[in-house]
Amino acid sequence: MVSVIATSLDWGGLIVFAITGALVASRKQMDIVGFSLLAAATGIGGGTFRDLALGLTPVFWVRQPAYLLVCVGVALAVFFTAHIPQSRYRILLWLDAIGMAVFAVTGAQIALAAGVSPTIAIAMGVATATFGGVIRDVLGGESPVILSHEIYVTAALLGACVYVFLISAGVAEAPAAIVGFGAAFLLRAAAMRYGWSLPRYRPRPGRAFDLSSKDRHRGGPG
Amino acid sequence: MVSVIATSLDWGGLIVFAITGALVASRKQMDIVGFSLLAAATGIGGGTFRDLALGLTPVFWVRQPAYLLVCVGVALAVFFTAHIPQSRYRILLWLDAIGMAVFAVTGAQIALAAGVSPTIAIAMGVATATFGGVIRDVLGGESPVILSHEIYVTAALLGACVYVFLISAGVAEAPAAIVGFGAAFLLRAAAMRYGWSLPRYRPRPGRAFDLSSKDRHRGGPG
Amino acid sequence: MVSVIATSLDWGGLIVFAITGALVASRKQMDIVGFSLLAAATGIGGGTFRDLALGLTPVFWVRQPAYLLVCVGVALAVFFTAHIPQSRYRILLWLDAIGMAVFAVTGAQIALAAGVSPTIAIAMGVATATFGGVIRDVLGGESPVILSHEIYVTAALLGACVYVFLISAGVAEAPAAIVGFGAAFLLRAAAMRYGWSLPRYRPRPGRAFDLSSKDRHRGGPG
Repeated sequence: MVSVIATSLDWGGLIVFAITGALVASRKQMDIVGFSLLAAATGIGGGTFRDLALGLTPVFWVRQPAYLLVCVGVALAVFFTAHIPQSRYRILLWLDAIGMAVFAVTGAQIALAAGVSPTIAIAMGVATATFGGVIRDVLGGESPVILSHEIYVTAALLGACVYVFLISAGVAEAPAAIVGFGAAFLLRAAAMRYGWSLPRYRPRPGRAFDLSSKDRHRGGPG
Repeated sequence: MVSVIATSLDWGGLIVFAITGALVASRKQMDIVGFSLLAAATGIGGGTFRDLALGLTPVFWVRQPAYLLVCVGVALAVFFTAHIPQSRYRILLWLDAIGMAVFAVTGAQIALAAGVSPTIAIAMGVATATFGGVIRDVLGGESPVILSHEIYVTAALLGACVYVFLISAGVAEAPAAIVGFGAAFLLRAAAMRYGWSLPRYRPRPGRAFDLSSKDRHRGGPG
Repeated sequence: MVSVIATSLDWGGLIVFAITGALVASRKQMDIVGFSLLAAATGIGGGTFRDLALGLTPVFWVRQPAYLLVCVGVALAVFFTAHIPQSRYRILLWLDAIGMAVFAVTGAQIALAAGVSPTIAIAMGVATATFGGVIRDVLGGESPVILSHEIYVTAALLGACVYVFLISAGVAEAPAAIVGFGAAFLLRAAAMRYGWSLPRYRPRPGRAFDLSSKDRHRGGPG
């Protein structure tokens, strides 16, 4: 039962992230190989970083090539069917929210299984949830969703914290995963719907200054 | 005999990729250290990713520092001799095609030797062939050759597939490597010469929409 | 005694690099989570690459979560106190110079302890010293300090070379580390102060040409 839920979440996250990669490729009018590359980079990028940092090598998709093949399959499906106009960018953001929430939980899960401390498990949840999207946006020339003004990384952090806390408190795997996923997804969804953001660092008067290279040579305070 | 060919290909690919890195540095008028950095990142970047993902650590250039030293030597040579004007960008593209074709084969070769499945060996061939150039273009501020409209990644994919298929079919190492290299190089060369590209995803009417941040807040379909 | 100095340098380098990451976040008016991400990426990015390439996994901050927590603490401190106007970019450059000089030495130190050759130890010093800053500048959308016209990577190279040479010559750990740090920091400081740079590759007449995509199709010399 537990492993069914964990496995479903895992594949579900991979698939929605792969779709977002393919959607970015469609926005850039790439060819089918470009679709596959972006789908794979988005779907497996976060988990690759997690596995490398934890020393779980060969990384998961080398051990189970099915992950890579599913990404390519998703890319093919999107390439031949992604004709739904206009709303595509909003679909991308919502799928990205699902993938982020899933990977925040499964990233922490795999890290805990590797025997790391709760702090690191949370960090791995955040990294797994966010790195795939960063790679997608950098390769596709998009403004990184991770830097969007609405809450994003914070939602991944919340999901990973909730999951790790529940596991530490003795809650079973399945409910912990579902509650963690729900916390991350709902926070991100609310942030997108209502434009929520954390308080930002505010510039003070007199702070603005020129960043041209001659600034670097100034002797005195600018 | 086999290992002579494999070793020659390996060093040849490293050297031509290092040259392309140094040529990008020359276009950016970097200093000698910048030349060395770009030459090394291009020459060893793809193989570093391959070794990390496969768990072959320490990575190859840590085990054999000569790889790094050759990149630095190439950088020095280009720094003091790269005066051939005008045609430099075309030279860069042709050398890049050779390096790509070589690394598509040797990347797959090393992955197979590490015991992975054919699917992963092909993926490693593609990754080894393309990542060095991506790093070069990102560091040098160039438009990534991987996203060029002419066939590029597809050529690496073809070379890796041909090599892995021939090895699986019992063909000896040397002919398999040479045929794989030839397939990748000739496809890329034809694509550059005749402007070949795969069919691209085509936008449909009504698909265009504004990507400014206010789009992210819209409630209804844009 | 030795380990006190090594540990102090190590934490000192982490803290100043984390501060520079948080300062870039303040320039971009990020929220507290953005501050933490940039501080952590800058503080631990170089060492993460070093550990991965050397096969020292799990990487250092997975083994010792305190590194990550200190970066987050630094981010919080900067978020609530970084009101000193105007001179912030110059502070950033000077702190960056300290962090670079520290990590050039500690990167080489850890590599030597892992049993690699002097060449690789020097390369690891340079990589550890420069990669964190590259990640910071890429994530923060700044022009990479590594590509600044004043000497930068060369200073890291000098520090790592001096340290490795002194250790090879039988000098004790502590003085070797201090002299290596001093060499890297003073060279970078002088370069910033007086605008020093290495001779750069100079374009020759007739070298300039158009880089638009149609260039890629030209048959003859441009």
